[in-house]
Amino acid sequence: MKSKYEDDSLTLHTDLYQINMAESYWADGIHDRKAIFELYFRKLPFGNGYAIFAGLERILEYLKNFHFSESDLSYLKYELGYNDDFLEYLKKVRFTGSVYSMVEGEVVFANEPIIRIEASLAEAQLVETALLNIVNYQTLIATKASRIKHIITNESAAEFGTRRAQEMDAAIWGARAAIIGGFDSTSNVRAGKRFDIPVSGTHAHAMVQAYKDEYAAFHSYANRHKDCVFLVDTYNTLKSGVPNAIRVAKELGDKINFIGIRLDSGDIAFLSKEARRMLDEAGFTKAKIIVSNDLDEYTILNLKSQGAKVDSWGIGTKLITAYDQPALGAVYKMVAIENDEGVLEDTIKITSNAEKVSTPGLKHVYRIIDRENGKAEGDYITLADENPQEEERIKMFHPIHTFVSKFVTNFDAKNLHQKVIDDGEIIYESPSVLEMQKYAFESLELLWDEYKRSLNPEEYPVDLSQKCWDNKMRNIQEVSNMVRNMEHLRGTENG
Amino acid sequence: MKSKYEDDSLTLHTDLYQINMAESYWADGIHDRKAIFELYFRKLPFGNGYAIFAGLERILEYLKNFHFSESDLSYLKYELGYNDDFLEYLKKVRFTGSVYSMVEGEVVFANEPIIRIEASLAEAQLVETALLNIVNYQTLIATKASRIKHIITNESAAEFGTRRAQEMDAAIWGARAAIIGGFDSTSNVRAGKRFDIPVSGTHAHAMVQAYKDEYAAFHSYANRHKDCVFLVDTYNTLKSGVPNAIRVAKELGDKINFIGIRLDSGDIAFLSKEARRMLDEAGFTKAKIIVSNDLDEYTILNLKSQGAKVDSWGIGTKLITAYDQPALGAVYKMVAIENDEGVLEDTIKITSNAEKVSTPGLKHVYRIIDRENGKAEGDYITLADENPQEEERIKMFHPIHTFVSKFVTNFDAKNLHQKVIDDGEIIYESPSVLEMQKYAFESLELLWDEYKRSLNPEEYPVDLSQKCWDNKMRNIQEVSNMVRNMEHLRGTENG
Repeated sequence: MKSKYEDDSLTLHTDLYQINMAESYWADGIHDRKAIFELYFRKLPFGNGYAIFAGLERILEYLKNFHFSESDLSYLKYELGYNDDFLEYLKKVRFTGSVYSMVEGEVVFANEPIIRIEASLAEAQLVETALLNIVNYQTLIATKASRIKHIITNESAAEFGTRRAQEMDAAIWGARAAIIGGFDSTSNVRAGKRFDIPVSGTHAHAMVQAYKDEYAAFHSYANRHKDCVFLVDTYNTLKSGVPNAIRVAKELGDKINFIGIRLDSGDIAFLSKEARRMLDEAGFTKAKIIVSNDLDEYTILNLKSQGAKVDSWGIGTKLITAYDQPALGAVYKMVAIENDEGVLEDTIKITSNAEKVSTPGLKHVYRIIDRENGKAEGDYITLADENPQEEERIKMFHPIHTFVSKFVTNFDAKNLHQKVIDDGEIIYESPSVLEMQKYAFESLELLWDEYKRSLNPEEYPVDLSQKCWDNKMRNIQEVSNMVRNMEHLRGTENG
Repeated sequence: MKSKYEDDSLTLHTDLYQINMAESYWADGIHDRKAIFELYFRKLPFGNGYAIFAGLERILEYLKNFHFSESDLSYLKYELGYNDDFLEYLKKVRFTGSVYSMVEGEVVFANEPIIRIEASLAEAQLVETALLNIVNYQTLIATKASRIKHIITNESAAEFGTRRAQEMDAAIWGARAAIIGGFDSTSNVRAGKRFDIPVSGTHAHAMVQAYKDEYAAFHSYANRHKDCVFLVDTYNTLKSGVPNAIRVAKELGDKINFIGIRLDSGDIAFLSKEARRMLDEAGFTKAKIIVSNDLDEYTILNLKSQGAKVDSWGIGTKLITAYDQPALGAVYKMVAIENDEGVLEDTIKITSNAEKVSTPGLKHVYRIIDRENGKAEGDYITLADENPQEEERIKMFHPIHTFVSKFVTNFDAKNLHQKVIDDGEIIYESPSVLEMQKYAFESLELLWDEYKRSLNPEEYPVDLSQKCWDNKMRNIQEVSNMVRNMEHLRGTENG
């Protein structure tokens, strides 16, 4: 782009209002007050029973590099008219707060804080938009991948979506998220290089067109590539593609490793069964059938129920865009802030929709695990001064339908947050992406199957401790009183 | 990321199979054969009657910088096992072909080449994935924005979607595409800086929470910002938010420019009407009401029909993710390639779905404009050696339902392609984003309203010339004969 500004720092990757608010805070001298923000989503995507968190590594890098460049400041001054005094302040801003986060691959649920930011009010505000942008997408795709992998079960799964992704970042970060969620490989070579994840791919229709002759194209591919998967649907799958693949495989014998064929169009159920029969009859019983073509968990389930013979699934558009629900609605809410005396006070956001009211206070999230069967009983959100591990018995109750409750004993309470940034210093090293995947698989083992089924899963409990719930109710009452006083005041003014 | 590889060139932003194919071409010595590829989509998104093309500027930059870095080559060698001889070739590869393209903001339709690439076979193949990735997303969002703006008509439209975008590139390129499609501003400051487009925004709920007191928060905002829009729904819109906004506006009078209020939750139809009444009664008849909250063209149409009082619309999630159809299915198909004698020969991709069969040959696209009324009669695709402008009368007929036809006379034929890259050299300078928007508005003026309505628009004709259509049929016949010969051969083998 022939922009006036050469660098393109991510620090300006924020909504304008964050900068406006930071300016007011700074002008009023409250910008350095410590504020606590929580990042969470209110509803699981795809009707799924759980989500897989992804995005932390990108966030740590973003926060590490956070600073307004000279050109950012010029832009803010000359194009948007901010004053020098405030820009002098912005020039010095770095992210100096602390961050507590779940790790990538963690199984997460609605209405529990995935990340907690403890930072100066201005800093916490300035980074909100980018954090949400990152978590919303990466978590969405890791979840979609996990959901698809849940249906695929044993066959392998490849991410093929780059061309349909929502621009370039989505392609590579989506590829990475797909691996975290359980996929085996991506077609995106840049993602392979950048994230050290497996890449896969063979050839496209264009190659058959380039040689005009399908047989010649397969031969040429085999001449240079030991591992061969032939795409058989350029002209006619059963009459031309499969026979040509078999012919080349027979002719070259041990000279190549004939992995199999790929189907990318047509009636996959029928074609895969016919192709399987033809390959078997030709003696290639171990040759694999790889399919692609607008697949998702629903089509895969259907194809399986029709007895389709598929050894490997290539998933593109529907995964990389999370086609049936392309946005996760994660939000970032202030739950506490220092007052004039430097004491943390709760804050709350009220709406007429009970499920959208935020839960105030500095909180911890525990996964309550039954010691006998090793399964999770639910997640349990407490105020910071509580420690369920020290209790014999806890009462878990639904935060809206409070009569739905149970007592839990003989449990382990696992704190799901790790401190990843300490006063601006990154103290957490991300594991490899494949280790994140392993962690996700292990975390899913803690869940009863009823929470993991793709259709109408049971609702996994995410409950507030009694103390946390009481505190929320008290805060709601305080705001209600405040609004009532407003009405009263207006009555006086008007009367 | 702690990648082994420091740089992150976009040249590897491709599917692995492209590199595998390039290797076969190179090994067979056909990599330098000239090939013609066309980029187009087969179906308009959202049930809309047209699309708005975006993405060219990003493509030109990508092609200009196209080269495998040292670290790209290391990765291909050490991680993926490519041989040195091929890597030596890759090291020298640049994009040296020519590109013909429509300009950004152009009104485009299904099944017409938006971009034509004339390049060496290997180069054309290596750039496919990135080109599709860019065009698919940017065109999708420009189209969605245009569709939403068509319903909004006169009020202003702001793009507010960054936090819900599919990662960072989507946020900024989507913001740019939204402006091309007709939006007035974006909230993303980085997009503003990078693309020289207007940014807008005021404050969030967190600011009200930070001051606890809504009145104090509005006051503080007004102290530092002359232009004031107050967000009035943190606690209670009508009982607290609007009264506080009015109170601050009255107290400060001329000291601020009270632009208006923003509603971000609740029943927008009801709240906007009540807020309008309260503002008017307080004498602020010119104060604007800005609304946001999961809006799209459907909710906006509904709100308007309910008489909602809205002066400005902020659109987030549904626009930036193209929520109701998050992928455009643009494809990139080879239509011709040099043969052994250096002569261009047509190529075709056949499928059992008639609408998915590609149209072979080097082609031009003309917009046929009636000289009397200035309206477009349709788009007309010809082989390269035809020039409809030299003809008195052309027959336009539906390429599938060929009996649907009309004769057109007294027309201008506008070639929609510009040469933008000449043998690797960029010869086109993109206009500003706002000029692209202007061009889009002007281009839409050429269309009858029936093609532009958001529900069940008429199908705009995209027709093939007789010669182009005949050529396609001949190619289909040739492939059919080839497949039939295959069957015959197999019969012989088996019999």
